[in-house]
Amino acid sequence: MICKESDTYAVPGFLANGIHAGIKENGIKDLALIFSVVPAKASAVFTRNCFKAAPVLLDMERIKSGVAQAILANSGNANAATGEAGYADAVDMSRSVSDNLNIADELVLVASTGIIGHRPPVRNIKEGMEGLVGGLHPNGIPAAAEAIMTTDKFPKMSCRKNVIGSKEVSVCGIAKGAGMIEPNMATMLAFAMTDLDIDVHTLNEVFKQAVDGSFNAITVDGCMSTNDTAIILANGMAGNKQMKGASNSLSLFREMLFGVMSDLSDAIVRDGEGATKFIEVIVDEAGSITDAKKVAYAVANSNLVKTAFYGGDPNWGRIIAAAGSSGINLPVDAVKLYFEEIPVFAHGKGIDGHETELLEIMSRTNIKVFLKLGMGNKSHRICTSDLTFDYIKINAHYRT
Amino acid sequence: MICKESDTYAVPGFLANGIHAGIKENGIKDLALIFSVVPAKASAVFTRNCFKAAPVLLDMERIKSGVAQAILANSGNANAATGEAGYADAVDMSRSVSDNLNIADELVLVASTGIIGHRPPVRNIKEGMEGLVGGLHPNGIPAAAEAIMTTDKFPKMSCRKNVIGSKEVSVCGIAKGAGMIEPNMATMLAFAMTDLDIDVHTLNEVFKQAVDGSFNAITVDGCMSTNDTAIILANGMAGNKQMKGASNSLSLFREMLFGVMSDLSDAIVRDGEGATKFIEVIVDEAGSITDAKKVAYAVANSNLVKTAFYGGDPNWGRIIAAAGSSGINLPVDAVKLYFEEIPVFAHGKGIDGHETELLEIMSRTNIKVFLKLGMGNKSHRICTSDLTFDYIKINAHYRT
Repeated sequence: MICKESDTYAVPGFLANGIHAGIKENGIKDLALIFSVVPAKASAVFTRNCFKAAPVLLDMERIKSGVAQAILANSGNANAATGEAGYADAVDMSRSVSDNLNIADELVLVASTGIIGHRPPVRNIKEGMEGLVGGLHPNGIPAAAEAIMTTDKFPKMSCRKNVIGSKEVSVCGIAKGAGMIEPNMATMLAFAMTDLDIDVHTLNEVFKQAVDGSFNAITVDGCMSTNDTAIILANGMAGNKQMKGASNSLSLFREMLFGVMSDLSDAIVRDGEGATKFIEVIVDEAGSITDAKKVAYAVANSNLVKTAFYGGDPNWGRIIAAAGSSGINLPVDAVKLYFEEIPVFAHGKGIDGHETELLEIMSRTNIKVFLKLGMGNKSHRICTSDLTFDYIKINAHYRT
Repeated sequence: MICKESDTYAVPGFLANGIHAGIKENGIKDLALIFSVVPAKASAVFTRNCFKAAPVLLDMERIKSGVAQAILANSGNANAATGEAGYADAVDMSRSVSDNLNIADELVLVASTGIIGHRPPVRNIKEGMEGLVGGLHPNGIPAAAEAIMTTDKFPKMSCRKNVIGSKEVSVCGIAKGAGMIEPNMATMLAFAMTDLDIDVHTLNEVFKQAVDGSFNAITVDGCMSTNDTAIILANGMAGNKQMKGASNSLSLFREMLFGVMSDLSDAIVRDGEGATKFIEVIVDEAGSITDAKKVAYAVANSNLVKTAFYGGDPNWGRIIAAAGSSGINLPVDAVKLYFEEIPVFAHGKGIDGHETELLEIMSRTNIKVFLKLGMGNKSHRICTSDLTFDYIKINAHYRT
């Protein structure tokens, strides 16, 4: 079941809230808190950028325990490239949460997004904490989703409910994305909550798979942030027999989690800075998944390809040129390219005669491109957006 | 000596011309010919894209002989992704040249640039050949430079003269670039002419070095074309003792050739589609040149970095984030970043207090960024341009 109404964005045992704490201007929400009434199993995936933001460094330490109870997230300031002082600020922020909630400091995870290179306004955050904690609510997830937005045009939420072993289990997730979206990680921030009872190693495995299949399969501008963080908390309140290792029940849960994470990652691409189109690049018949990924990213990150989609131009030559420059030695005569079901390239040359259908396809807001390499049976799918005037507008002046 | 006036764009023994042959519309020049009155030593570097255009495939065969006498180049049609018919078209085009010049067919090289996936209008090209050959002239290099332009805003030419071993030696080059500029190769087309007498193996070596140091060190949009071609012809008419292997004379020639090729590659970046700024990314203190290149390209190809330059925003955080995502394991605390001479990042954090100088630097049209990795003593420099509204405008509608 896919939740559609706002009152269903709730997971038993989880409270959330989002407020304006004065990190941003104009009263816009900028501070979010997610709280599990009991300590939860916790798993996370972080950016592989060398310059990890202070909260990422802090969380990487704390997640080792496999347990957490709260996530504090702010927008408006990334607390990245802030050195030791910034790390101390992140610890300070977590203390403010643990003090107010009366839980152990180590059970608080912190996430930040926004401008790089400036220390966060810890005083404002501390002053806002009482109100943030005081307003925690089972239906507070949408407020939290709103508070982590930066250049996002809409909050991103998704949830699924299902019966697993006679117990109803819920999974809800929130995310923020927009620009700087690239695999490893694909979103700046994503937080998932579930009431499932699950062994932490099994949770780690299934969460990593879900991130790989969702956030790590999208790209907006090929940039990987200093702050990208995806966290899941599983508080066990569904009362199921603890899940451990492979089982039919785990498959059911995996499907729910994939659904939530894919909803969120799709929403991030649709809301890519300035994006007007959602483009799926499906590379098939590759010799290996690594090859398939390389070719898919070469196409999905090509500015020439992305501008052609924006212009509604079925310029398959740019896709072929991008694929050919991926570093994979492609068998030119075996490669085939399709826009949806229309073949446009095969046997080393273009296929004429479908101009009308192609223009119609290019006018859609959802477009699939299939590239068959003729090298094997591996495939990879990446979602991306077009490159538009608004991307430039948003990013030429974001900081100042 | 750097040539400044148009009548100096000449090399003894070389004739050139550029005409409108009807490949493009509106009487714009679209067909160029370079001819050496005697067979010349020839060397070339081609795109590494898997989908090589027909003229590239033809030239790769012919250049093996190390001798050529003419280069036919057209704009308006890339003759790429045109299969066997396109290859036959390229051969046909070369025959039209060899027939009219009464030289062996194998001495003709062909280069094309323009739309991918359509066969070239060979009939128009043949019909124009008599006029093209008839108008060959020692001062025809500027006309040839004009005829190979696509979205270029100005023709690109450079030449050097110097006395080497009591003989005056000339090197002239023309190029076309604009979008789709990326190393391996950096320009769609570049042709150099010299009257030096040089052994072909020595020519191969010095030309490859010159291409690596110029065209392979620039990037506009990270895209590598199907048609990129750089060719040099050396006809020996300077009358010097044939150069072979390392010598002071070769060093002199290398400097001249580097000068010409760098002028051309710089001009390509300055004329990058929609570009308003010329940005040099210099990565220093790398552990290897490979590492230095990876980091430099991660920065130079980052859309977030490029839009920040367009917006005049000294957003060093985006440069650090791009460098950190290059895949090289950077020592965070040792990395230093400078905008020109102003330090902005060191010891893992930003350096405050230079906002005024930084805004002044960002208002310039030429900006140098230095990234010191603290890992070794290798360095690499890449030139790039900013990402602007005009890039989108040009590329969203180029084909149709």
